[in-house]
Amino acid sequence: MQFLSDNAAAVHPAVWEAMKDADAPQPPYDNDSLSQALDEAFSALFARPVSAIWVASGTAANCLALATMVQPYGAVICHRDAHIENDEGGAPGFFTHGAKLLLADGENAKLTPDSISAVTGPIRRDVHQVWPHAISITQATEAGCVYQPEEVAAIGALARAQGLKLHMDGARFANAVAYLGCTPAAASCEGGVDALSFGFVKNGGMSAEALVYFDLDLAADVKFRRKRAGHLQSKGRFLAAQILAMLKGDLWLANGRAANAAAAQIASSVGDRLLYPVEANEVFLRLSPAERDALRAQGFGFYDWGADGARFVTAWNARDEHVTALSRALAGL
Amino acid sequence: MQFLSDNAAAVHPAVWEAMKDADAPQPPYDNDSLSQALDEAFSALFARPVSAIWVASGTAANCLALATMVQPYGAVICHRDAHIENDEGGAPGFFTHGAKLLLADGENAKLTPDSISAVTGPIRRDVHQVWPHAISITQATEAGCVYQPEEVAAIGALARAQGLKLHMDGARFANAVAYLGCTPAAASCEGGVDALSFGFVKNGGMSAEALVYFDLDLAADVKFRRKRAGHLQSKGRFLAAQILAMLKGDLWLANGRAANAAAAQIASSVGDRLLYPVEANEVFLRLSPAERDALRAQGFGFYDWGADGARFVTAWNARDEHVTALSRALAGL
Amino acid sequence: MQFLSDNAAAVHPAVWEAMKDADAPQPPYDNDSLSQALDEAFSALFARPVSAIWVASGTAANCLALATMVQPYGAVICHRDAHIENDEGGAPGFFTHGAKLLLADGENAKLTPDSISAVTGPIRRDVHQVWPHAISITQATEAGCVYQPEEVAAIGALARAQGLKLHMDGARFANAVAYLGCTPAAASCEGGVDALSFGFVKNGGMSAEALVYFDLDLAADVKFRRKRAGHLQSKGRFLAAQILAMLKGDLWLANGRAANAAAAQIASSVGDRLLYPVEANEVFLRLSPAERDALRAQGFGFYDWGADGARFVTAWNARDEHVTALSRALAGL
Amino acid sequence: MQFLSDNAAAVHPAVWEAMKDADAPQPPYDNDSLSQALDEAFSALFARPVSAIWVASGTAANCLALATMVQPYGAVICHRDAHIENDEGGAPGFFTHGAKLLLADGENAKLTPDSISAVTGPIRRDVHQVWPHAISITQATEAGCVYQPEEVAAIGALARAQGLKLHMDGARFANAVAYLGCTPAAASCEGGVDALSFGFVKNGGMSAEALVYFDLDLAADVKFRRKRAGHLQSKGRFLAAQILAMLKGDLWLANGRAANAAAAQIASSVGDRLLYPVEANEVFLRLSPAERDALRAQGFGFYDWGADGARFVTAWNARDEHVTALSRALAGL
Repeated sequence: MQFLSDNAAAVHPAVWEAMKDADAPQPPYDNDSLSQALDEAFSALFARPVSAIWVASGTAANCLALATMVQPYGAVICHRDAHIENDEGGAPGFFTHGAKLLLADGENAKLTPDSISAVTGPIRRDVHQVWPHAISITQATEAGCVYQPEEVAAIGALARAQGLKLHMDGARFANAVAYLGCTPAAASCEGGVDALSFGFVKNGGMSAEALVYFDLDLAADVKFRRKRAGHLQSKGRFLAAQILAMLKGDLWLANGRAANAAAAQIASSVGDRLLYPVEANEVFLRLSPAERDALRAQGFGFYDWGADGARFVTAWNARDEHVTALSRALAGL
Repeated sequence: MQFLSDNAAAVHPAVWEAMKDADAPQPPYDNDSLSQALDEAFSALFARPVSAIWVASGTAANCLALATMVQPYGAVICHRDAHIENDEGGAPGFFTHGAKLLLADGENAKLTPDSISAVTGPIRRDVHQVWPHAISITQATEAGCVYQPEEVAAIGALARAQGLKLHMDGARFANAVAYLGCTPAAASCEGGVDALSFGFVKNGGMSAEALVYFDLDLAADVKFRRKRAGHLQSKGRFLAAQILAMLKGDLWLANGRAANAAAAQIASSVGDRLLYPVEANEVFLRLSPAERDALRAQGFGFYDWGADGARFVTAWNARDEHVTALSRALAGL
Repeated sequence: MQFLSDNAAAVHPAVWEAMKDADAPQPPYDNDSLSQALDEAFSALFARPVSAIWVASGTAANCLALATMVQPYGAVICHRDAHIENDEGGAPGFFTHGAKLLLADGENAKLTPDSISAVTGPIRRDVHQVWPHAISITQATEAGCVYQPEEVAAIGALARAQGLKLHMDGARFANAVAYLGCTPAAASCEGGVDALSFGFVKNGGMSAEALVYFDLDLAADVKFRRKRAGHLQSKGRFLAAQILAMLKGDLWLANGRAANAAAAQIASSVGDRLLYPVEANEVFLRLSPAERDALRAQGFGFYDWGADGARFVTAWNARDEHVTALSRALAGL
Repeated sequence: MQFLSDNAAAVHPAVWEAMKDADAPQPPYDNDSLSQALDEAFSALFARPVSAIWVASGTAANCLALATMVQPYGAVICHRDAHIENDEGGAPGFFTHGAKLLLADGENAKLTPDSISAVTGPIRRDVHQVWPHAISITQATEAGCVYQPEEVAAIGALARAQGLKLHMDGARFANAVAYLGCTPAAASCEGGVDALSFGFVKNGGMSAEALVYFDLDLAADVKFRRKRAGHLQSKGRFLAAQILAMLKGDLWLANGRAANAAAAQIASSVGDRLLYPVEANEVFLRLSPAERDALRAQGFGFYDWGADGARFVTAWNARDEHVTALSRALAGL
C-alpha cells in the first residue's frame, strides 16, 4: 500500500491507448500531427492563444521556462521549499548558466507579495548584487497547498510592477485546479503567470509534461533551448499523444479530483496531526518514529518528513481499500 | 513509402510488451528493478563490468558522455560531418559548459589517426590554445560506413598515447555490429572506447538510449549530470524496459540486420550511383533533381543530400514491397 | 575624510616604484621573470611549496579558486554575509558553471563547524540534491572579525572529514594576520586551507591580487581557467611587480598593521556603539540617521549599515588627523 | 632587439603620468571621474553617442562584446585565423555559455561577404543546427592587413540584412586607422560595426582596453557581465586614466603610426619574401630555418610562422637602430 509518491504511479489506460495509436509513420521530432496540435489544444483549454511544447520531465519544463525568463547574471525568486531549489539537482543553475535562486519564506510553502518584497527590497541596484528577473511559484505547493486565484494575481501584479516574469511550477496543477473548482486559466494566467509547467506524469501520464507559454514572446527561443538540452526526442509523437489523451474530456481534471479525494479521506481521520491544510493530494502528518514504524509494519509505504512527521501522497489510481486501510490505521494510532 | 529516416519508425512489439509489463508499482527514477538491471545486462553483453544508464535521446547520451570526458576549457575532436557538430543544436557546448569541437577530416565520415593528428599536431601546448581532451567517433558513421575493429583500435591507441578519452556515438551501433559480424565489444571497447552511446530509438525502441561506460571512473558523476540536465525521468522503469527488451535475445542485432539487409538490397540496384559504401542502413546516391522528383512522384520519401544526391534510410521494419519498389524505381531511372 | 572603503585607497610608493622598474622588455603574459618568481616568494612566506598566480580582482581570485574546487553540479558552503554571495554580481555562478552557494550562519560573519554541519546535515545524499564540494571562509570576515588559527583548523578538520576543499577569501588577509600576530601560515594553510585569495589591492596595491594554492593538485588547471576568463594580461609583469613589492620586507604586514591601528583608535572612542568586535580595519557602529547626518556634515565619508548603523573602513594610509577627528566626532555624538 | 610582439612593449610616459595623477582619492570601481569620462571621450572621437567601458585584456573585451551579441545557442562567424578562435583559450565559449564559432575563409585573414555567405548559406534553419547571431572581424587582421572602409561596410550590410550583429576586434585598431588615414569612425562604425574592442595595451598602454558600443542597446547589460567575470576592478580609475591619456592629443594614433612606419621600413628591405601585404605593424616573411637561425644569432627576437616563415612585430617605441639593423640583416640574407 504505497503512499510514497504519485510520481511513479501507473499510466492511465487512455494514455496507453493514445500512445499505441500514435505508432504509425509520422515525421520525426515535433513535426508530427500530434505535437503540432498542442498549441491549439492548450489554447482551447486556457481560452487564449498559448504556445506549448512537450518535455520529458518536470525539471526540464521548469528549467527551460526559467532559462527563457532570466539572464545568467540574474536571479529567480522562489520559496525556500521550492522543488527547483531542493529537488532538481541544481538543474536551474545548469539551464540558466548560473543564475541564482533567491529564497523567500511563506506559510504552507506559498510566496506572498510581502515575502517576495522582503527578498527584493534590500537588494542594492548596482552591478555588485544580483537582481531578480523572475519569480517562480508552485501550484499546488510543496506543502500540498493551493494558491487561490487572488493570491496568484497579487504576485502577478507585483511581478509586473517590478518587471519580473512569473513562472508556475504546476507539477500538481491538476490537483490545484481540482481543489479550486475554477478554470485552469483562473488558477494561472489570469493571475499573471507567463509560463506554466503543466504536469502530467504524476497524474496518469508516462513521460510527458507540457510547458505552456502565455507570454508568447518568451516562447520564441525555447525550442532552441529544448534541442540544446537533448530534450527534443525523435519520436516526440509519443509524448504529444500522452498529453492530448490527458486533455481529452478533461481526464487530467478527473484524475486530479480522484487523487485529491483520497487525500481528503485520509486527512479526515487524523485529528490534529495535520502539518499543513490538505488541499491537493498530499497529506503531511505529525507522526513519531514509533508511530511510523507501526504503520510500516502494517504495510504502508510513505516518506519521513523531518524527525516527527510523514508525507503521504495519493495518486490518480489510489485504491479505495488502501485509502480506507490507511485512514483506519491512522485513526487507530 | 518512407525512407526519410529510421528515427521515427514504429516501436517493436516486444518493446511495447515490455513497457506494459513495467506498469506496476515500482520505486521512482532509476530505483526500480529494471533500471537497476542495466549494469548487469550490458556487462553480460560486453563481457566485462560496465556501467550503464538510460536517457531519452541520442543527443543527451552523447553530450553527457562528453561532459564527463572534457573540461570546459578543453576540446573534443570529431569528424567534420559528425552529428554532434551538425545536428545537435549546440548541445555539446551546453553540456560541456563551452568546450570546443575540433573538426577533423576523413573519408566516409571516418576519423583516422592521421586525420586526428593533423588537428592535434599544430596545437601549441600553452594556455592560449584549447587542448583536446577527448575524441568522438560515430559507429556507423554519418555516411553509413562502419569502422572495422582495427580502425577503432588504432584510434584508441592514439587516444591513450595522447591521454585522450574516446567516445563512440552509436546511434546506429546495432547496424554497425550487424555489418561487422563481430561481438559488440570488438566493435567498441576492445578498441579502446571509454563510453558508448548505444542507440535503440532508431532500431525499434521508443524513447530510450543507453549510455554505457567501459571506463568506470568516468561514470562516477554522470548520474548527477543526468539529473541536472532534467533527464532523470520519474518513471524511468519505462525506459529501462525498452532497453532490456531490445537486449533480450539480441533483438537489437536482429533489427539491425533487417535494416541493413534492406539497405543492401537497395544498393544492389543502383549501379555506380553510390556516394559511399553501403555498410549499414543508409544509402547515399547521386541523383539529379529531376530524378529525385520522379521518385517522389512515385511516392518515395527521402532527403536530398546536397544538390545532386539523396539519402535513403531503412528501418528495422522496412517492408519488402517498399524496398523492392524502390529498388526497381532506382534501377529504372 | 573618507572612511568609505580601503578598496580605492592610494597605491603605496614602493608599489609604484616596482611597477616602474618592471617597465623593461620582458616576455609577455606570465612568462616574465617577476611572474615566474611568485611561486618562490609565496613558498618562502608560507614555509612550504605553494603555487601562486596573479589576477586583477578579488572576485576573480575567489571565483577561480572555487572553480577548481567545485564541480558545476556541486555547491560551496559560505556565510550568509560572504562577499561571494553578496557582492560579486553572481561571479561564482559564472566561473563554476552554475554551482550553488549554500548559506550558513555564524556570529561575526564567521562559519563554525556547527553552522556548517547545520547546512550539510540535512542534505540527502542522492542526485536530487546538490552536494557540497567546498567551503569558503573570509579572513578577516565581512564583519571585520578574525578567525583564530584554531577556528580555521576546526573548519579544516571538518572539511577533510567530509571530503570538502577549503577556500579562504583573504581580501583583508593582511589585516587578519596583523591582528593575530601569528605567521600567515598559521592563519591559513596550517588550519587546512587549500587555496587563499591573498588580497593586496585594499592594502596598498593597484590591480593585483594573488591566488595561492597550498593544495598543488588543485592548481593544475587554474592557469587554463584564468586565460579563459580573460584574466591573463599580456603585461602581467606589472601585476607581479606589485605583489613582489608588497611581500618585500613584509610591507603587506606593515600596511595591515597601520590600517588596523587606525580602526582600533576609532573603536576606542565609541563606547557601546560597536556592532562587532573591531579586529581588523573595519568599524561597524550603531548610529542613528541623525547621527550619520551630523557626521557627514562634518565631512566624514562612510557607508550606512542597515537602518541604524554605519561602516567605517580604514586604509593603510589612514591619516592621523582624520582618524583623530573621526574619533572625536564619534565621542562627541 | 625584440620583434616578438607589441603586447609586452613598454608603457608610454604619458600613460605613466596619467596613472600617477589618478592616485588621488576617488570612488571605487567605475564611479570615479575618469571612468565616468569615457563615454564622452569616445563619443567625441567617433562623433556619435557611444558607450564605453574599460577592461584589462583584449580577450575580455572581445568576449564580453560577443556575450552581448549572441545567445548561448547561437554562433559567431569569424575567420579561421581569428584571435578569438586560436588564441583566447576558449574564452568565447566561456563568456557566451557555449556559443559556437563558425570558421570562414578569406585572404589575408579578412572575411568577405562571400566567405561569410559560404558559411551561413548551408545552415538549415531548424533547431538542429546552430544559427549565426553575430560576425566578428579583426582590424587590423591577424595577417597584419587592414579592412578598407568599404570592405567593412560590405560586411556590415550583410550583417544587417541577415539580422546579425557585427563585432570588431581592434587589438591593433590604431595601426589600422594609421594605415587608412581615415577617421576611426570610417574604419569601424560607419561600416556597421556594433561594438569595437579598441586596443591600447599593444600600443603604449599598460592594462586597459576599451570596449566601445555603437549600438547602445547592446551595451545595456555589459556592466553586469563585466562584474560577473571579475573584471570590474576596484581601482578602475587607473585603467580609465590610461585610456584617456592615449586618447589625449591622439596619442593612440601617433603611436600606431610609429609602429607602422617601423614595419614598413622592414618590409621595404625584404624583396619577395613577404607572406602578406604589410599594412599595419606586423611583417610576415618567408624565412628558412637556417635563415631564422642566422638572424637569431645576430640577436633578433621573433616568432616562427609555420615551417618556413617568421613574424616580426614592431611596437610604438621601436628603436630606429634596431629596425635598421633588422632591415640590413634581412637584406643581407
